[in-house]
Amino acid sequence: MSNPALLALLHTLVEAGATIAFALSGLLAAARKRLDAVGVCVVAGLAAFGGGTLRDVLLDRRPFFWVEHAGWLWGLLALCIAAMAFLRARHFAPTERAMQWPDALGLGLFGASGTQLAVAQDLPGIVAVLMGVVTATFGGVLRDIVCNEIPTALHDHRPYAVCAFAGGWVLVAVHHAGLPPGWGLLAGATTATGLRVLALATGFTLPRWSSAHSPRE
Amino acid sequence: MSNPALLALLHTLVEAGATIAFALSGLLAAARKRLDAVGVCVVAGLAAFGGGTLRDVLLDRRPFFWVEHAGWLWGLLALCIAAMAFLRARHFAPTERAMQWPDALGLGLFGASGTQLAVAQDLPGIVAVLMGVVTATFGGVLRDIVCNEIPTALHDHRPYAVCAFAGGWVLVAVHHAGLPPGWGLLAGATTATGLRVLALATGFTLPRWSSAHSPRE
Amino acid sequence: MSNPALLALLHTLVEAGATIAFALSGLLAAARKRLDAVGVCVVAGLAAFGGGTLRDVLLDRRPFFWVEHAGWLWGLLALCIAAMAFLRARHFAPTERAMQWPDALGLGLFGASGTQLAVAQDLPGIVAVLMGVVTATFGGVLRDIVCNEIPTALHDHRPYAVCAFAGGWVLVAVHHAGLPPGWGLLAGATTATGLRVLALATGFTLPRWSSAHSPRE
Repeated sequence: MSNPALLALLHTLVEAGATIAFALSGLLAAARKRLDAVGVCVVAGLAAFGGGTLRDVLLDRRPFFWVEHAGWLWGLLALCIAAMAFLRARHFAPTERAMQWPDALGLGLFGASGTQLAVAQDLPGIVAVLMGVVTATFGGVLRDIVCNEIPTALHDHRPYAVCAFAGGWVLVAVHHAGLPPGWGLLAGATTATGLRVLALATGFTLPRWSSAHSPRE
Repeated sequence: MSNPALLALLHTLVEAGATIAFALSGLLAAARKRLDAVGVCVVAGLAAFGGGTLRDVLLDRRPFFWVEHAGWLWGLLALCIAAMAFLRARHFAPTERAMQWPDALGLGLFGASGTQLAVAQDLPGIVAVLMGVVTATFGGVLRDIVCNEIPTALHDHRPYAVCAFAGGWVLVAVHHAGLPPGWGLLAGATTATGLRVLALATGFTLPRWSSAHSPRE
Repeated sequence: MSNPALLALLHTLVEAGATIAFALSGLLAAARKRLDAVGVCVVAGLAAFGGGTLRDVLLDRRPFFWVEHAGWLWGLLALCIAAMAFLRARHFAPTERAMQWPDALGLGLFGASGTQLAVAQDLPGIVAVLMGVVTATFGGVLRDIVCNEIPTALHDHRPYAVCAFAGGWVLVAVHHAGLPPGWGLLAGATTATGLRVLALATGFTLPRWSSAHSPRE
């Protein structure tokens, strides 16, 4: 599991799998805002690649995932064209429900891979965990900003970023225990995805701002 | 045309010409939102330099255009002060119509120069084309995000980014045919500007999302 | 004052002091928008570190302040948790008034430190001043964009960015006079903070767009 080539392949597979679920969330958001064909591709692309790209800008890593594996840009384009041709409004709600599970997988996988990359650069634990959270959530944040909405991840009181946060700390702990990176990736991704699935199943919500009972405006 | 110094000069002229049309689009957007003097300069600056700067961050190129040619920042400042002093509300609509043509020129020139820079770094074709599109359109996207609007380029169903996309592929094809860079720049810019002018003249619109007839909300 | 180690320490202290005032502005904005715990931390973090991070991305400086001094991320987290537990809605308005003065200090300190870093890279005066303005104001701009508002700094007609702009030019002038960097930092920060305090005390507003009397929409 500590073989560098195998680890690189694992990273690539991990990022690839999560990308499709995130792109679909962008597609549906663009459809709801009635964006045109360009808007659909841009928002799907931001949702899919935005988090990883922002992480790479912050870590000063080049080339980006979508430069090294440019085939994924073609895949995104094909996905957008297919969705515009075949996805009807009455399919939106079921699609969104169906995407919750690959999205939870993506949350764990993206978060763990982002944290792993930062840990490999010997960054402090909290910075590494933050990079995982950025990777997992900022695609969705950029998607919502472009769609002129307050980002869902910041105000729906559902645990999303906090799952990636918890998974990141598990990965950092495994790393400091001296175990091989593959184990950390697996443990971190499993923790984040597991917590997200648990939160979806139980309907758990984050604590509210203490002023909720005496609104100002 | 393949002389490096001449090519660099051509690049500079190309970027300079397009910048003014883009800055004016930012000025008018800021005026419509009643921003103050700072807001006018920031939005005009984002519209003018945002696309090229984002491209340079993504390609890891330094120094930025506006660092190397800092005189352009003075020019932008002068333009904003002059506009705030002399441009009245009744001039907005005519100004906007008059700017359509230099803006179409800017679309072609910025798009081709962005694609050319990426091609010179041996990036894959689709990435190079994407860089051209980012250069040509993200100034406007940032302008609209700061003004708290859904970006025009993503929802007005007019071909804008797709013109830069088409022009980029022409440039990439010329490059792969082994012709000098100047030819590619010329062919790419002409294609994008030509398509944009054609779209403006004919009122052509992009295909709509297939759910347009059965809205969800 | 020109001792490099002392200067570095001064920089760190300067950035640290301003950070808390900026984080509180983010906290209050997030509270007003009823964001959840994640949103509160993200918006406070953007307000506190966003301007400096954007400056570092533009100047291609690494590591970021919050990577080198990761303890500040813990401090931010503690500040957010404490605020969510103890800050009640009836404390918002007084908190905001009380924060005006440390915020004015932060404006001067962040602006001067951003300009100083650019001057040390031998960038042109206007670019260095712009970097100071970005450092001092873009945390607030990002905070407002994420909260889906037109950034306050761009439309409230109160001098804020222009104070940092003026202070930056004072620093650049001191630098070109050949005086030690510490003097420039002090003069620039004092100018910006002093102008801001003066503007708050006198209620001075920026000139309005000349079309204000004949609105278009």
